[in-house]
Amino acid sequence: MTDQSRQWTAALVVIGDEILSGRTQDKNVAQVATWLNEQGIRLVEVRVVPDDAERIGEAVNALRKAHDYLFTTGGIGPTHDDITVDAIAKALDVPVIIHPGARKVLEDYYRDRPGGLTEARLRMARVPEGAELIENPSSGAPGIKIGNVYIMAGVPGITASMLQGLTGKLEGGRPVVSVTIGARAAESDVADLLRETEAAHPGVAIGSYPFFKDGRYGANFVVRSEDGELARRTSDDLTGRLRAAGYDPVDGGI
Amino acid sequence: MTDQSRQWTAALVVIGDEILSGRTQDKNVAQVATWLNEQGIRLVEVRVVPDDAERIGEAVNALRKAHDYLFTTGGIGPTHDDITVDAIAKALDVPVIIHPGARKVLEDYYRDRPGGLTEARLRMARVPEGAELIENPSSGAPGIKIGNVYIMAGVPGITASMLQGLTGKLEGGRPVVSVTIGARAAESDVADLLRETEAAHPGVAIGSYPFFKDGRYGANFVVRSEDGELARRTSDDLTGRLRAAGYDPVDGGI
Repeated sequence: MTDQSRQWTAALVVIGDEILSGRTQDKNVAQVATWLNEQGIRLVEVRVVPDDAERIGEAVNALRKAHDYLFTTGGIGPTHDDITVDAIAKALDVPVIIHPGARKVLEDYYRDRPGGLTEARLRMARVPEGAELIENPSSGAPGIKIGNVYIMAGVPGITASMLQGLTGKLEGGRPVVSVTIGARAAESDVADLLRETEAAHPGVAIGSYPFFKDGRYGANFVVRSEDGELARRTSDDLTGRLRAAGYDPVDGGI
Repeated sequence: MTDQSRQWTAALVVIGDEILSGRTQDKNVAQVATWLNEQGIRLVEVRVVPDDAERIGEAVNALRKAHDYLFTTGGIGPTHDDITVDAIAKALDVPVIIHPGARKVLEDYYRDRPGGLTEARLRMARVPEGAELIENPSSGAPGIKIGNVYIMAGVPGITASMLQGLTGKLEGGRPVVSVTIGARAAESDVADLLRETEAAHPGVAIGSYPFFKDGRYGANFVVRSEDGELARRTSDDLTGRLRAAGYDPVDGGI
């Protein structure tokens, strides 16, 4: 083994009956994954759980201990089905309090809006005791950080805004570099070639993603490594091997 | 407690580095969830795990014991990164064998196709010992059933085809009926009304899903119950309460 820089890992808990019923197509897994990679942190597990305090708590406690960071999305709005804060506070065995900073943010936000800061809206200032806020440039309610747990909104545009508030603030390692090459090959025809290429370049993973497009089969091959130079060297090798096998590889994928 | 018919539950393990890297937007959670509900089975947990035999095995063993059914998607193609069958066989402590029926399906499928049934393609006939096949009307490779574990493809169109092969064949209870009502209301303004409506109708869950559309806030409220009559009665009540509060509720949502 060569000396490698430490790999930082994260898990994500997606909270919401609407995802598990199929009503809502989740967008946060892809969004959080992409953002984490830019921070040099690897997303290694996701769990989707219902609006159920016990299941939320179980997932949060299992994953916050196993990873450097744990993110959650969903269930922090003003309505009765928003139980994430209570569930996480219970899992961490701390009380729920009104965060003075969050109350201030909401007071300012709702000052000139109809209805003002109602009791329902003030629910969005509730945090597990000991929490800090995650800035949310786009709407009133902030996200919540407690220990290594980052509690974010479920609406993808608001999640994005909270991630923006966190950009560059988390300690991470090297982002994974990925290089994609496409070819009009049935993946079963290049299976040996792919396996051999991966074996020839330790430290690299090659994924194969088949498709059927314009009436023909093809596949995209994604070369991933924390070592960008190695990823590029491997993709050059793969391109050469595909060409030698009679294919016409396409940089960037098809 | 009134006597209730038994609730059947399922979990799903989504397998694939491409989902956790953000490269690929998962479609199978929503697809499997919707299909399961039609079979009268509730999807109650999803885990997304990388192409890593140990993590696949851990998730499969934890979830197959906790639920009536466990589904997996991804990692059953012909290439070196398709390790699902091996990982699940190891988790179940059985060897991997070539299934004679699956070999026959592949022989027929590749008989008149270029290259024929290569060794790489024959990989798709490998199953944990004791498994049965899940018919796949649309492409060569079948899905795999072993015990209460259903192993399916990751490409959503092929997953759909395997689900079609299973339709009506699993024992389930009553599908959850959901009725959606939309209103141009900030959800924080109707939080009390929603909580009170839910409390007045035991056996019903009401979810609130805010949006911002055409420059205005609004929310959709989803009333869910295994008792369709109760769901409709509750949605009528909710419609009445929203109207009384000055909103103009829209059947079916906005």
